[in-house]
Amino acid sequence: MKILKNDLKSELNIRTQKDFPEEGIEFIDIMPLIIQKETFNEIVEKMSTEISNKKVDYIVGPEARGLIIGSAIAYKLNIGFIPVRKAGKLPPTTVEKQFDYEKEYGKDTLELPKLVNEEYKNKRFYLVDDIYATGNTMNAMKTAIEEIGGIVVGQGVIMNIKELNDAKDVYSLLEVNEE
Amino acid sequence: MKILKNDLKSELNIRTQKDFPEEGIEFIDIMPLIIQKETFNEIVEKMSTEISNKKVDYIVGPEARGLIIGSAIAYKLNIGFIPVRKAGKLPPTTVEKQFDYEKEYGKDTLELPKLVNEEYKNKRFYLVDDIYATGNTMNAMKTAIEEIGGIVVGQGVIMNIKELNDAKDVYSLLEVNEE
Repeated sequence: MKILKNDLKSELNIRTQKDFPEEGIEFIDIMPLIIQKETFNEIVEKMSTEISNKKVDYIVGPEARGLIIGSAIAYKLNIGFIPVRKAGKLPPTTVEKQFDYEKEYGKDTLELPKLVNEEYKNKRFYLVDDIYATGNTMNAMKTAIEEIGGIVVGQGVIMNIKELNDAKDVYSLLEVNEE
Repeated sequence: MKILKNDLKSELNIRTQKDFPEEGIEFIDIMPLIIQKETFNEIVEKMSTEISNKKVDYIVGPEARGLIIGSAIAYKLNIGFIPVRKAGKLPPTTVEKQFDYEKEYGKDTLELPKLVNEEYKNKRFYLVDDIYATGNTMNAMKTAIEEIGGIVVGQGVIMNIKELNDAKDVYSLLEVNEE
């Protein structure tokens, strides 16, 4: 892994593993950034600052690692948090919308839960995740929310793997290449 | 569902669904408590107060819903957060310990990630999750951490389903029966 940009001041402990989960893929394990309190604190603070002036109604984050970063930011900003779940985890009557997406390794289905006593329509959503790779998860969430009338006002991640996408509108604290 | 104790002041929106995920089980969906910012804020504040005087080194929470509550509390208290993952999600070289447990509906395997430049031995851990039902997940995490020398100083959840366990040492904001 080659680091192209690093906006974090605390010590960067990232673990990589070759050929995981499949041969030819170098897995970037960002768990140390969460386990180490200095880094996690800095990530939540900086992403919250980025989001704070966007008049966001809800932070949205996907299972599993997007839940970790999303809920802490939502708490910090005193905004509601919408956990995007893998299909089959929410009772069907509480699902607002189900949608498919292509992962780096295979297909998957996600579900947006119903809000509490209100609709997605015309509400403002900011999407977060740990890593932006191909962007497929983020794009699928964005499309799904827009299809039910929501407004996606931004997208942010801890790390953007630049060589896997050409996104211009994704906020990140770290930019890397896999090589 | 019957509410036996409610320590939350904000409006309680809990959705239940009969016969999910299996016939005969009434699923309690606590998502509204997270999506609704007033409730989520109150949950994180109250659980953090409970934990704050226990000299905790790490908050520990299991995938998936334990990640939501755990990371926000860890951020609030400026403590490290340890996400307990389902087997196969972490690169094998970053797994500290793998352990099995019995769920309400079937068996599963969880994994504790390695810490950053230190060991579990003699560190102090507080375990959190959304719901305490049979207690099997929590007990399995406790045993796993103790087996590698860690000290579990407490366990807390949003909701304790009292009729499914006789635990005396679990902090909760809500106590319910399923009936």
